[in-house]
Amino acid sequence: MKAEIVSIGDELLVGQTVNNNAAFIGRLMSEINVDVQWLTSVGDNLERMQSALEAAWNRVDLVLTTGGLGPTHDDITKDALCRFFGVDYTFHTEIVDEIKSRFDARGMEMPDIVRNQGLIPTGAELIRNELGSAFGIRFQRAGKVLIAMPGVPFEMERMMTDSVVPYIRTLTGDDTILIRKIKTTGIIESKLVTVFKRLNDVRALADVAVLPKVTGVELRLTVRSLDPDDARIRMNSALSMTQEDIGEWIVAVGEDTLEEILGRELSSRGYTVSVAESCTGGLLADRLTSVPGSSRYFMGGIVSYSNEIKEKILGVPETLLDKAGAVSVEVAEAMAAGIRDAMKTDFGVSTTGIAGPGGGTPSKPVGLAFIAVAGPQGIVSDRVMFNINREMNKQRFAQAALNLLRRKLLKNSTA
Amino acid sequence: MKAEIVSIGDELLVGQTVNNNAAFIGRLMSEINVDVQWLTSVGDNLERMQSALEAAWNRVDLVLTTGGLGPTHDDITKDALCRFFGVDYTFHTEIVDEIKSRFDARGMEMPDIVRNQGLIPTGAELIRNELGSAFGIRFQRAGKVLIAMPGVPFEMERMMTDSVVPYIRTLTGDDTILIRKIKTTGIIESKLVTVFKRLNDVRALADVAVLPKVTGVELRLTVRSLDPDDARIRMNSALSMTQEDIGEWIVAVGEDTLEEILGRELSSRGYTVSVAESCTGGLLADRLTSVPGSSRYFMGGIVSYSNEIKEKILGVPETLLDKAGAVSVEVAEAMAAGIRDAMKTDFGVSTTGIAGPGGGTPSKPVGLAFIAVAGPQGIVSDRVMFNINREMNKQRFAQAALNLLRRKLLKNSTA
Repeated sequence: MKAEIVSIGDELLVGQTVNNNAAFIGRLMSEINVDVQWLTSVGDNLERMQSALEAAWNRVDLVLTTGGLGPTHDDITKDALCRFFGVDYTFHTEIVDEIKSRFDARGMEMPDIVRNQGLIPTGAELIRNELGSAFGIRFQRAGKVLIAMPGVPFEMERMMTDSVVPYIRTLTGDDTILIRKIKTTGIIESKLVTVFKRLNDVRALADVAVLPKVTGVELRLTVRSLDPDDARIRMNSALSMTQEDIGEWIVAVGEDTLEEILGRELSSRGYTVSVAESCTGGLLADRLTSVPGSSRYFMGGIVSYSNEIKEKILGVPETLLDKAGAVSVEVAEAMAAGIRDAMKTDFGVSTTGIAGPGGGTPSKPVGLAFIAVAGPQGIVSDRVMFNINREMNKQRFAQAALNLLRRKLLKNSTA
Repeated sequence: MKAEIVSIGDELLVGQTVNNNAAFIGRLMSEINVDVQWLTSVGDNLERMQSALEAAWNRVDLVLTTGGLGPTHDDITKDALCRFFGVDYTFHTEIVDEIKSRFDARGMEMPDIVRNQGLIPTGAELIRNELGSAFGIRFQRAGKVLIAMPGVPFEMERMMTDSVVPYIRTLTGDDTILIRKIKTTGIIESKLVTVFKRLNDVRALADVAVLPKVTGVELRLTVRSLDPDDARIRMNSALSMTQEDIGEWIVAVGEDTLEEILGRELSSRGYTVSVAESCTGGLLADRLTSVPGSSRYFMGGIVSYSNEIKEKILGVPETLLDKAGAVSVEVAEAMAAGIRDAMKTDFGVSTTGIAGPGGGTPSKPVGLAFIAVAGPQGIVSDRVMFNINREMNKQRFAQAALNLLRRKLLKNSTA
């Protein structure tokens, strides 16, 4: 099945918004074997939108649009659809009722303009929007399909996952498609492909995409087959070869994030954790608490930018700060032990380093960090060195710290 | 001048790469008054590339392509250009010589395949690539222009800035274009356009784009004029009408983030700040410390998931926690005051709420949060209620807290 994504909005053309929506849809489509051949972006202009819809409708089987479904004056996608399919509007009271009940639940008055959201091109199927007021629209004509979604990313993403992908699956047939993400950390792409000796053998079994991300290189294995058993066998062989070659750097197989894996590991074993952050500035706590239910095992954290707090709350000795310096393996270990004590948790994790762009010295340059994990069986620590920019440095320091916790937990379980 | 950006590469269609290049080019074009009307992405497929070039060439005056200029087998943009303009290749020894001398300078051998980079469609002008081996290509025919650039972002960006933009400026003349972003927070789009009484008057002076983002609605005003004074006057009138109508919700005019504005405000006035977070789980500290130099005014923070820490480190009375509950305006205020004392800062900011998806009750549902700011002149607090999902709830709670700090700082300065 051939597809085109048509993204609507002036903000895309002037570069105010990067088209992450198209990338998200493209990824999901490639996973279900839909061949996206074109991405087109047009502005909020009726004539060009018409012309984009026409070109897309003529050259592919499935057209997915995002944007322009809001209630305001410059949202004209529905007008364009009415013209394109030669239909008028039908007013759907049930949409307005549902949206109004959501406003009511929040104790807010629904602005009048929102009533426009009840107007839907006649003959279109509705796609519920759980998170916003712009419902999706689906047209089916002569074996082709057009689906219009809102441009707000989280609304579109939920709609894609819950409704659009399952619907398209009913059209594309029953190929078994297995996809596994393999997330690595702590190794660069060019090194990874070198140590991955059997990469070509794996490629014979599965499509392999290699994606460098800020927190590590991600592999994506895709197996397609008409026979589900064959698909499963091929995926399992590909996975076990991958595990054997590069298992040391793999933090996750599947969609789970490192913090979700840690969360499961910690809560299933009844462990608690706390963090003491300097160079990661709250990001470590933020990532750990992004997991629903994290309050069961995450007791709290301290962001200690000042030395005074390192001393007072974490009990890092002043002499150590003077002698080794705040950015040192000794202070990292003292911080991990200190937060573990202060918060009375099983594990304490710490980071101290120089995120930059300022604050570096020849012996302690920007990008240097020390991380430590204190646990029931002692303290481990590590030195890491990255330098891209402040934001990415923070991200990679946090990733390294979470990964050190993961390794420590693994060791604990085998001890 | 009307333009189209044609982005070439399979990686765009399957969402492996987000099209940041198109956004970059779009931004530069909008700044020099080139009206980008279409963005098109196609894969590494000769037939579809031809058809994309043809469509673009017919509907605009300027076509900018990125990607497919490398030396390998799947780089076929130059083939497509030869076919499209009906020309053959000319071999440019000077290109290969220059690239070879760069390899020599780094003590490296030039791989044979790189010689392909000397092949350029006959009749094209060359655009030097300072940072890579794929030179840019420019065709001029019948008053129209096509410029092909490499897809590697930093190579393309340098080429745009150094060569392409100055060249296009020679074609477009000297219109003045002014662009201002206006970031709001705490008000939804449909309400904003309702309270923005003079939106139509502003639209008469400037183009207005309205973009809902997770942390608030963003407006973008664009004024174009042949007369720079006229442009300035129109922008100033548009901005002051906007300020008068919706100033209450405006957090920034320009590119600055809320945390950057706070950083400037705090450091210029010699103030320090600390945070006590419950429901935002470290995100508040993470955002404040994302600003380079934030260690000057950000002393630290505490993520207090457990009540014990709220009591022990923040000094929130146990009786208050029992009586009002951890999620209450009283506890938010006590946390803000407590962290201000503990960290000896001028301001203390706190959040306590229910990020979800679990933990809600009928009287304290998921999405409810209390935020407070303690300062030299007392404490202010606010109640907020959002519910989308855990991640977004955290984001919006943090935004509301930073915004409360901003308001408190403004009041302090006028007091």
